[in-house]
Amino acid sequence: MALSDLQTLNRNEDGIQTAISVLKQQFGEQLKTSQAYLEQHAHTMTYIPSQLPDAVVFARTTQDVQDIVRVCADYKVPIIPFGTGTSLEGGVNAPAGGISIDLNEMNKVLSVNVDDLDCVVQPGVTRETLNEYLRGSGLFFPIDPGANASLGGMAATRASGTNTVRYGTMRENVVTMTVVMPDGRAVKTASRTRKTSAGYDLTKLMVGSEGTLGIITELTLRLHGIPDQISAGICQFETIENACNACILAMQVGLPLARIELLDSLQVEMVNQYSGLTHDPKPTLFLEFHGTEAGVNEQIEIFTEIANDFGGGNIQWEQTTEARNKLWKARHDAYYAMLAWRKGCNGIATDACVPISRLAECLSETQKDAQELDLVAPIVGHVGDGNFHITPLVMMDDADEVARAEEFIERLNMRAIAMEGTCTGEHGIGQGKRRFLRLEHGVGADIMASIKKAIDPDNIMNPGKVVGYSE
Amino acid sequence: MALSDLQTLNRNEDGIQTAISVLKQQFGEQLKTSQAYLEQHAHTMTYIPSQLPDAVVFARTTQDVQDIVRVCADYKVPIIPFGTGTSLEGGVNAPAGGISIDLNEMNKVLSVNVDDLDCVVQPGVTRETLNEYLRGSGLFFPIDPGANASLGGMAATRASGTNTVRYGTMRENVVTMTVVMPDGRAVKTASRTRKTSAGYDLTKLMVGSEGTLGIITELTLRLHGIPDQISAGICQFETIENACNACILAMQVGLPLARIELLDSLQVEMVNQYSGLTHDPKPTLFLEFHGTEAGVNEQIEIFTEIANDFGGGNIQWEQTTEARNKLWKARHDAYYAMLAWRKGCNGIATDACVPISRLAECLSETQKDAQELDLVAPIVGHVGDGNFHITPLVMMDDADEVARAEEFIERLNMRAIAMEGTCTGEHGIGQGKRRFLRLEHGVGADIMASIKKAIDPDNIMNPGKVVGYSE
Repeated sequence: MALSDLQTLNRNEDGIQTAISVLKQQFGEQLKTSQAYLEQHAHTMTYIPSQLPDAVVFARTTQDVQDIVRVCADYKVPIIPFGTGTSLEGGVNAPAGGISIDLNEMNKVLSVNVDDLDCVVQPGVTRETLNEYLRGSGLFFPIDPGANASLGGMAATRASGTNTVRYGTMRENVVTMTVVMPDGRAVKTASRTRKTSAGYDLTKLMVGSEGTLGIITELTLRLHGIPDQISAGICQFETIENACNACILAMQVGLPLARIELLDSLQVEMVNQYSGLTHDPKPTLFLEFHGTEAGVNEQIEIFTEIANDFGGGNIQWEQTTEARNKLWKARHDAYYAMLAWRKGCNGIATDACVPISRLAECLSETQKDAQELDLVAPIVGHVGDGNFHITPLVMMDDADEVARAEEFIERLNMRAIAMEGTCTGEHGIGQGKRRFLRLEHGVGADIMASIKKAIDPDNIMNPGKVVGYSE
Repeated sequence: MALSDLQTLNRNEDGIQTAISVLKQQFGEQLKTSQAYLEQHAHTMTYIPSQLPDAVVFARTTQDVQDIVRVCADYKVPIIPFGTGTSLEGGVNAPAGGISIDLNEMNKVLSVNVDDLDCVVQPGVTRETLNEYLRGSGLFFPIDPGANASLGGMAATRASGTNTVRYGTMRENVVTMTVVMPDGRAVKTASRTRKTSAGYDLTKLMVGSEGTLGIITELTLRLHGIPDQISAGICQFETIENACNACILAMQVGLPLARIELLDSLQVEMVNQYSGLTHDPKPTLFLEFHGTEAGVNEQIEIFTEIANDFGGGNIQWEQTTEARNKLWKARHDAYYAMLAWRKGCNGIATDACVPISRLAECLSETQKDAQELDLVAPIVGHVGDGNFHITPLVMMDDADEVARAEEFIERLNMRAIAMEGTCTGEHGIGQGKRRFLRLEHGVGADIMASIKKAIDPDNIMNPGKVVGYSE
């Protein structure tokens, strides 16, 4: 990871200045170069230092994006797509300078197709805006990363969230997209069908490519029916192993868990203090079931039996929206609770993911590392997916602590990889995890680089992110 | 399509002969050049004429495949991977000659990971063999194309089947694969996790690439719990529109249909005659629900209400395996029934797929075409996916009828594409649909070609299939 070691790439100074002049003529007030705008567009939400672009252009249409890309292609100038700037891995940084394309003005829901359970949106629509728009339709869009991110950005990082165990990630929920390629051509990645065998899966190639292959300017997303009944509950266990085993068994018997989130005892203490709650400081599962009334009741019955087998405490189930929101508060406040726990710290985001059979082992070994390295590092986990966030709370001016956090993250990611897992379940590679991408994928990283080179031969699309071939 | 117009590519005669000599030394009796073997390995199951390879090598390990590929790479000789030879689009043909790699001896299930709901198999394992192996584990692998295909081949064509509406296609059910690349290196396409954001999605790029980017030598597949209760039923409607609308509404209200298959009235007549059944010759839905006992009963109740709204007849539900098998017989016999209906005909496989909101319209316009062009063309449809097979039964020695079938398929595929659909929902592009791939994808086909060129610069991997760059 090397928290301190940020790559800077060579700048194409002449090209950048020329491109800005040309774009200024074409886009007038849509183009900004003042410091305030530049800083706003390299806001990384993390420990990764900002690397500013040289200009920001606010695109309004796919045609705008094509025009901007063509100018940048002519002068070989980097292009960095920008949504809400909530990347956790430096996704919007400009290590070689260049043009940030802000997509927030492309914020319309273009159509909702109730019969097909899909909708067409512009990339600047956020997930919350889409769900507000859908209110009354009986449908919703499930993917819920921590931030109220833009849907374009979520597709670009292959984002997921708390109900991925049931509804999938962006990978499963993007039907097709319009993407502007590095030469300025716009491509529709697939038909609007539930399945296709027509050639290479360009949709899935673009989902998760983090702006390094093209810029997403329109998305067709799968929608889901709002279930008749939603029930949420909290179940506490004596050990993380027991909590994980209850989760594994529930999935084995085919329970359609909508959410199953783990907080370790440290994280429970933190939310108790932050939100004035009184949960026992024990490993705790936050659960949610979706279905018909009979179906949900059946799920609750089956899960309760499973939880009892693993010593899980009594579960109180909540049906009303208000009671459920109150129950989920502890989970939602986790991030703020941890920052409040240690004033002045930075939370170093991690998101290793392993096969769930290895999760308990991975979690307990990682907790041991935190102890050994004297780090405060609470855990929140999407356990149904084998994905967890253990977040070292680090004082960035303490060089020794930073070094220990680096060691911790190194061990964490290498352990996950050794367990047939990944260094990133949902945050993406960005700048922060490039080294681990190579360790995880080996030959695969070479193949990714060859695809990058074929599609973006001048390396103008979000350079310095994910995988590079000329760096 | 041009049923009659089959592409032949230039042969690298010297390279082929040299590669065979070298491979003969390395592989001895594993290499075959006798006519019988060659013919067996270009068996296309379709109207597409056979194009034989020059040799067949029976690979036993990933290392074997790597060794074969390296020799072929050295001499720039085409490689055609071979599973069960059940491609419907000429996938195993050798239009430029070359080496067929037979993967049937790589037929072991390597592990079943019950906790992770996945298994690791070699590419020659067939779907039926896997499910026999899983007997007693409480798990099953759902994807069921018409043939008992090899799982490697199914991944290569992004296959699906009757229960895709519930369980997804190979796209959703391949976790990771080992693929031998055109330079002989083996790559693991991803970690064994339920999700990942680590770089480009190589798994999904390889799924559906039809052997044109690499050869699959190991697959990790998702497994599913065998449901407690399975109920199947048949429901007849007055019109195809009503049958489609019942399907759309059932999906909108979130019914987790496991199977929903349509037979048009002509197809029902054919199976009646073939299998001695007595169904009314009406558009008929074959349905199956999976779940707990209470869950399935609830699904049946909801579907019955929906069917009644659209004039669907009484449904008799069957729970026992025997009764269900009897009920599904009509669906399973569809292909044989149509061939028996018109002795000596060839069934020209089609598999257009559209958004389900457009399905009724697409079906009825296509039926009109069949009438207008005086073709006998029954319909079997995976209606929950918007995918259907309308199969002109053609006497191939009747040039006029062949020409009318070509016209019919042209109209069908262009209609599907115009409706935001695809020319192939599950059979793949192969040789047969290359022209439609370009019409469907436009710029996207160029991008596919650039990926092909980057990964396989000498065009040795199954040349003449899917997308070409040097042809």
